[in-house]
Amino acid sequence: MATTDLASRVYDHTWKLDPIVRSLLDTDFYKLLMLQMIWRLHRDTKVTFSLINRTSRVKLAEEIDEAELRDQLDYARSLTFTKKEMIWLAGNSFYGRSQIFEPEFLAWLAKFRLPEYELKRVDGQFELDFHGPWTHTTMWEIPALAIVNELRSRSAMRPMGRFALDVLYARAKSKLWDKVERLRQLPNLRLSDFGTRRRHSFLWQRWCVEALKEGLGDAFIGSSNVLLAMDADLEAIGTNAHELPMVEAALSPDDAALHGAPYRVLREWETLYGGNLLIVLPDAYGTTAFLKNAPDWVADWTGFRPDSAPPIPAGEEIIAWWRSKGRDPSEKLLIFSDGMDVDTIEETYRHFSGRARMSFGWGTNLTNDFRGCAPEPCGALDPISLVCKVSSANGHPVVKLSDNPRKASGPEEEIERYLKVFGSKGRIDREVFV
Amino acid sequence: MATTDLASRVYDHTWKLDPIVRSLLDTDFYKLLMLQMIWRLHRDTKVTFSLINRTSRVKLAEEIDEAELRDQLDYARSLTFTKKEMIWLAGNSFYGRSQIFEPEFLAWLAKFRLPEYELKRVDGQFELDFHGPWTHTTMWEIPALAIVNELRSRSAMRPMGRFALDVLYARAKSKLWDKVERLRQLPNLRLSDFGTRRRHSFLWQRWCVEALKEGLGDAFIGSSNVLLAMDADLEAIGTNAHELPMVEAALSPDDAALHGAPYRVLREWETLYGGNLLIVLPDAYGTTAFLKNAPDWVADWTGFRPDSAPPIPAGEEIIAWWRSKGRDPSEKLLIFSDGMDVDTIEETYRHFSGRARMSFGWGTNLTNDFRGCAPEPCGALDPISLVCKVSSANGHPVVKLSDNPRKASGPEEEIERYLKVFGSKGRIDREVFV
Repeated sequence: MATTDLASRVYDHTWKLDPIVRSLLDTDFYKLLMLQMIWRLHRDTKVTFSLINRTSRVKLAEEIDEAELRDQLDYARSLTFTKKEMIWLAGNSFYGRSQIFEPEFLAWLAKFRLPEYELKRVDGQFELDFHGPWTHTTMWEIPALAIVNELRSRSAMRPMGRFALDVLYARAKSKLWDKVERLRQLPNLRLSDFGTRRRHSFLWQRWCVEALKEGLGDAFIGSSNVLLAMDADLEAIGTNAHELPMVEAALSPDDAALHGAPYRVLREWETLYGGNLLIVLPDAYGTTAFLKNAPDWVADWTGFRPDSAPPIPAGEEIIAWWRSKGRDPSEKLLIFSDGMDVDTIEETYRHFSGRARMSFGWGTNLTNDFRGCAPEPCGALDPISLVCKVSSANGHPVVKLSDNPRKASGPEEEIERYLKVFGSKGRIDREVFV
Repeated sequence: MATTDLASRVYDHTWKLDPIVRSLLDTDFYKLLMLQMIWRLHRDTKVTFSLINRTSRVKLAEEIDEAELRDQLDYARSLTFTKKEMIWLAGNSFYGRSQIFEPEFLAWLAKFRLPEYELKRVDGQFELDFHGPWTHTTMWEIPALAIVNELRSRSAMRPMGRFALDVLYARAKSKLWDKVERLRQLPNLRLSDFGTRRRHSFLWQRWCVEALKEGLGDAFIGSSNVLLAMDADLEAIGTNAHELPMVEAALSPDDAALHGAPYRVLREWETLYGGNLLIVLPDAYGTTAFLKNAPDWVADWTGFRPDSAPPIPAGEEIIAWWRSKGRDPSEKLLIFSDGMDVDTIEETYRHFSGRARMSFGWGTNLTNDFRGCAPEPCGALDPISLVCKVSSANGHPVVKLSDNPRKASGPEEEIERYLKVFGSKGRIDREVFV
């Protein structure tokens, strides 16, 4: 006799919305660290975040239904941090430090909701903007990306039958586990999940995190996803992002102030955080320019996260700089997190082994590698290069130069001005896959 | 809020037995065809079937708990054909023929139960014998093998955690689907599932059959498993097995009668069945001997199933024989089913393409290929060469010579006598994997 759980069946068949983001903790940890700094030091700054699809051949507004996108964004706006989540943020220690979030900030956070959004369809793409106080718009980055990416996967999978889906996930699991088996060959590897924003889906990211926990043991040091870190008793990983120097730069009154912006931001960060949270992200206006002009105290920071230059030359450049400053690179930390996959992790690991401490942030190729997994070839499941970036601050345009001109953002004439201030040395054009 | 189906949970946690064989239809179709012939022509013959583990390095009685084995065998003995099953056997057409089973046989079958078994542990192996009327003991072959094989998989998987199991099945699914994608490249392939006896588990065989149905379309012509054929509306596939000539030979009063036994059995078969059911299994006492002495009318049969010689030489030998008898091989059918996997299927298919009709019975390497799938290497999931063979008939020892001496069975002195009667030409020693 077949038994049917009637309640489940009726519930399944009268499904209204399958929310993608079900918790405000389903975001990257660095957003909370940055948020506390923004809340403390820049709470009157107005900042616009905008969705940018760098894979322009993919017409997002043709793959994703606008009404579904609105439903998901609206659902995310209905969320507040739950009591359990607030207690965990207050009571957990992060990077070995307890009470990293001050009580006044947490009291403010308890009332937080995601602000409004502006959504338009233009030429087959979505124009999705978030205007308002930086303290609010910054929090849209990760949920907006996760929502758009998961709606895209759902749309790609809609025509597939039950069996094709079964094969799809079986292959994706096999593929990931094969990667895990390669990574476990690397002694003392330190690797974390950085895959929230580009994930195939929330549940798939959760499976990937479980796989790393199961397969890598201590080599898996945590997840950038705060919700998954809480649920799986993992370390929450992450420090800061480009938006800090970008807004600081945009608000600089003149070129001299602009020139010093990347370092002022680090000083601000130091007032709030220490130890392993002192990680420099050097490439907003070119790593070479950053290092050339960096004050000596920057070399006292724990490490660097090169983000838009190829890992080996970038690491070499930073190591040479540490040496030139009289610091011992073997005591320093390099964090590699830009489009890494097993091949590049292995290569980078072997290259720097014994010369510097290293850790890897594994993102899109961890949580969204379904290439070749569908029974019928399906390009719509391939990840795209989708970002959500600051586009203006208090009405001023915001610019990123990056080590790779294809990752630059901002109005053309402002990019020219920034290039004059920072120079273009070391910037090399390279294809952006994810 | 998490919801729990209380009834399911309590049921799962007070589990008593997870039966492996849940229906008497969970057997190979040829058993039912042979049973009707045995019931009609040999109902007084007493035949013993015995389990033989040809992979002697695997100590079955150390891997499988005797009490669990008894529970499963006892459960199978509690089964009768259900009303729905009897109606389907009577109403379905098989090999294009309706009412293949006569009403009197079905009336007898409706009361059928599996007979007693005798089980002992000897030197780390099980001695499992079924004594009694051939009409009853013959029906133990497939359930006994399926039960022992599935208990062995269960035992191998017992130490694995939830995650390891997830990876195991994901990889097995990926592996099978990769095979399916290779097979779908072969135009006009005809392939059926022959994997009941050696399957990893019933549910896995069901998944494999669904995969072939989904992936191969018309190239997948059916399953030897009657239950799966019924449930999935597939053709039930299979004709006859070695037990027929083996018992006929064992009961031959003298060497002259023994010499004619393989052909007498075919004559008996013809009285009941025709058309595509006229498939010769030529190797019980060596294919070369069989062909040399075969009367001309054997060449009128639809096809041959070479079973213990390598497929290409065996097919060539049979094609040459058809030609020598003035028959057109391109109108004849060769069925390959001995330890086939994708490589040998492709090779054999290409070799005979256009020269003879072909079909493939895919067994162990379809339904039990978990080699390399477990996260921690686990040889206990590799398939073994386990058979359940006639060992005596009316008190006489029963002999099989086969094209491969390693597949021979019977007492040494009887094998000697049979070799004198049939000769040993064409018999070649080859390793038996599955």
